[in-house]
Amino acid sequence: MICDNLSINSSGHLCFAGYDTVGLAQKYGTPLYLMDENKIRENMREYKTAFEKYFPKGSCPEYASKAFSCKQIYRIAKEEGLNIDVVSMGEIYTAFKAGYPMENCFFHGNNKTDKEIAFAMESGVGCIVADSEEELFAIEKIAAQKGITQKILLRVTPGIDTHTHEKISTGNVDSKFGIAIDTNQAKETVGKILKLKNIDFTGFHCHIGSQIFESEPFDLASELMFRFIKDIKNTYGYTPRILNLGGGFGVRYVESDPKISFTEKIADIAEILKKQSNAFQIEIPKIAMEPGRSIVADAGLTLYSVGSVKEITGYKNYVSIDGGMTDNPRYTLYQSPYTVILASRANEKTDFCATIAGRCCEEGDVIQENVMLPKPNRNDILAVLTTGAYNYSMASNYNRVPRPPVVMLNENGDYVAVKRETLEDVCVLDI
Amino acid sequence: MICDNLSINSSGHLCFAGYDTVGLAQKYGTPLYLMDENKIRENMREYKTAFEKYFPKGSCPEYASKAFSCKQIYRIAKEEGLNIDVVSMGEIYTAFKAGYPMENCFFHGNNKTDKEIAFAMESGVGCIVADSEEELFAIEKIAAQKGITQKILLRVTPGIDTHTHEKISTGNVDSKFGIAIDTNQAKETVGKILKLKNIDFTGFHCHIGSQIFESEPFDLASELMFRFIKDIKNTYGYTPRILNLGGGFGVRYVESDPKISFTEKIADIAEILKKQSNAFQIEIPKIAMEPGRSIVADAGLTLYSVGSVKEITGYKNYVSIDGGMTDNPRYTLYQSPYTVILASRANEKTDFCATIAGRCCEEGDVIQENVMLPKPNRNDILAVLTTGAYNYSMASNYNRVPRPPVVMLNENGDYVAVKRETLEDVCVLDI
Repeated sequence: MICDNLSINSSGHLCFAGYDTVGLAQKYGTPLYLMDENKIRENMREYKTAFEKYFPKGSCPEYASKAFSCKQIYRIAKEEGLNIDVVSMGEIYTAFKAGYPMENCFFHGNNKTDKEIAFAMESGVGCIVADSEEELFAIEKIAAQKGITQKILLRVTPGIDTHTHEKISTGNVDSKFGIAIDTNQAKETVGKILKLKNIDFTGFHCHIGSQIFESEPFDLASELMFRFIKDIKNTYGYTPRILNLGGGFGVRYVESDPKISFTEKIADIAEILKKQSNAFQIEIPKIAMEPGRSIVADAGLTLYSVGSVKEITGYKNYVSIDGGMTDNPRYTLYQSPYTVILASRANEKTDFCATIAGRCCEEGDVIQENVMLPKPNRNDILAVLTTGAYNYSMASNYNRVPRPPVVMLNENGDYVAVKRETLEDVCVLDI
Repeated sequence: MICDNLSINSSGHLCFAGYDTVGLAQKYGTPLYLMDENKIRENMREYKTAFEKYFPKGSCPEYASKAFSCKQIYRIAKEEGLNIDVVSMGEIYTAFKAGYPMENCFFHGNNKTDKEIAFAMESGVGCIVADSEEELFAIEKIAAQKGITQKILLRVTPGIDTHTHEKISTGNVDSKFGIAIDTNQAKETVGKILKLKNIDFTGFHCHIGSQIFESEPFDLASELMFRFIKDIKNTYGYTPRILNLGGGFGVRYVESDPKISFTEKIADIAEILKKQSNAFQIEIPKIAMEPGRSIVADAGLTLYSVGSVKEITGYKNYVSIDGGMTDNPRYTLYQSPYTVILASRANEKTDFCATIAGRCCEEGDVIQENVMLPKPNRNDILAVLTTGAYNYSMASNYNRVPRPPVVMLNENGDYVAVKRETLEDVCVLDI
């Protein structure tokens, strides 16, 4: 199986984190998000342990909570000693309400309003990752009004495009995020920051993309960052205490994706950093990264009930499910690959090729094309794997479809982390 | 301006439905959905009047509420005498709670669960548009259990692809919706329906796509449908009472889109139907259509506040706003064109080219590329036009961003139709 938390039991049912998924579908109804709590913790611990082993003292991973945000995930991050990356008042509010220690919280995003900046400070957010000069001046002004000194990182764009897995060295100079090194604008901004009174400038943030399987992009990014840091040191005498390298390692959605060892990757990055540190004669700052997807994706799985099974003679087959782009918009958005299993008959021969169609009144509502399954019947249970990241967090009420609950699984049992939306919930704000 | 409900006042502010948009942004905050109630009613009346004038007695347009669903729109549809098209329990529940007469409600969708079918019957839904044989048998069974006779339409796929504006006559035989005529499956299904005891088989539904500007696709669809109806009559002696031609006329998103007269288009379709009626010697049934987008799109407008304005020297410019793919995912999903106006300085020279970037922590969160504006400042108000359809209805809480309110405007004033989500609302289901 694609992940070690999956198996098939003697009834031929798919098991997840040791639980019979068909039993969970009966207990909670479908669609249903399941999360394997131990897998989340295991992934967090692997990052945390590797950071402590390979990076300078004080280095810590941040859980990028936009991948999956709810109160319970912040409690888990707190218990596992991870910092968190938040991107909105909504995420700050949720983490705060969950009792997360907000000094370990980093506030990201390309566009923070004055209201959001003030809210972050009032919530005790540890560090704001400033994305533009307007934002820096807004932070300075609001911090001054509140009589505080606000820790910040400056987000810069080193100019690496990893989305295409090619070395296009100016590729993301034109990002909506951060300030470009290549255009000299980042350097100019540093000069301005160093004059601000209510800002504690702790270092730099860069982000070279997500779903990365190789170490090479980090090599390039590190070289560019150390060169930049050297230039800044020479010009202003400033040295960063923190260098945030952004997210995130690749996740295995389908068998053909490689299986990544986070520990090995972090060891590789540590070597890369040592090399650049020596080359530029700059001490390695505390390192941060922002894994989100790679912490929660394989800890998640979605269950659906099969509705109609449509064989269009001579054309194609459709298996319609009771969810779709409302709970997982990633195929519709990015044609993302997923592994699909008929959970209620997981040991039968997969000789029926079908497109898994969502229930929305929209032709494009598809979860996956050309999947091999045993031919399903109405009310069979279907599982889509590796849905822990960017599924619940991106869910909508399109077609006024209520969002599914999130049920967590651990050795003590199954429990609801996010309740199922009701029909009344969906129209509660309507006048 | 692109629509007659837009103007610019003496302060240089964009006005919508006669209201100063900057004043509304101050009153309600941003992001903010505005809806012009009179424009909605005007669009509904034009369809209704043209249907009465050109189509057989009893023909009525259905408002396709997936485009924009909330209690107030169902109240307006009720007052204007339109039928409604719903696609989920959530839409049925909302319409029911709004006091809509449910006998005028048509329940669509490619995958209705047994629970949804039962819920529709309990809510008094007038007609279920059956999409597959499984669904037909489920409707029959549940109707029998309840001791009722359920009106249905059968959705068939005539085999026209209008999305590409080309005549690919088998183009959507492979649709996830309906039963194909081309494969003879639709005809076989009709034979089965006619044996069912608890079903009142009222006719056929077909849908050839949306955002259609020409009459030609309707011509082709009508020919195919009349040929099919003739074949069904010859084989089974059955004649439909209703023929639903689906949605929907094109909407003007940008200046280069043509301006459509619904009345003229409906007159054209009436002529087409007469031609086919004569050719096949089949009386024209009552005609239904499902305009959604073309009723609400130009009745909507979204206001945002400008955050950072980023000029990446030698590359490109970004204007970041306090909303984005969370309230309007259509550019991210389909690269949909929109017209953007700097509402707070609408009379100034538009000499600054920028990409309008959303506030989500995702590079792809863009509302529009390469828009010409006066160079905005932080806190300027920006308007995106023609957002009445598939914006609020598709909105998400990605990044835990609360959804904006919907404020309606009419001659008596401005009023809230959907309240703004609060931070507490966003995590109210979290345990």
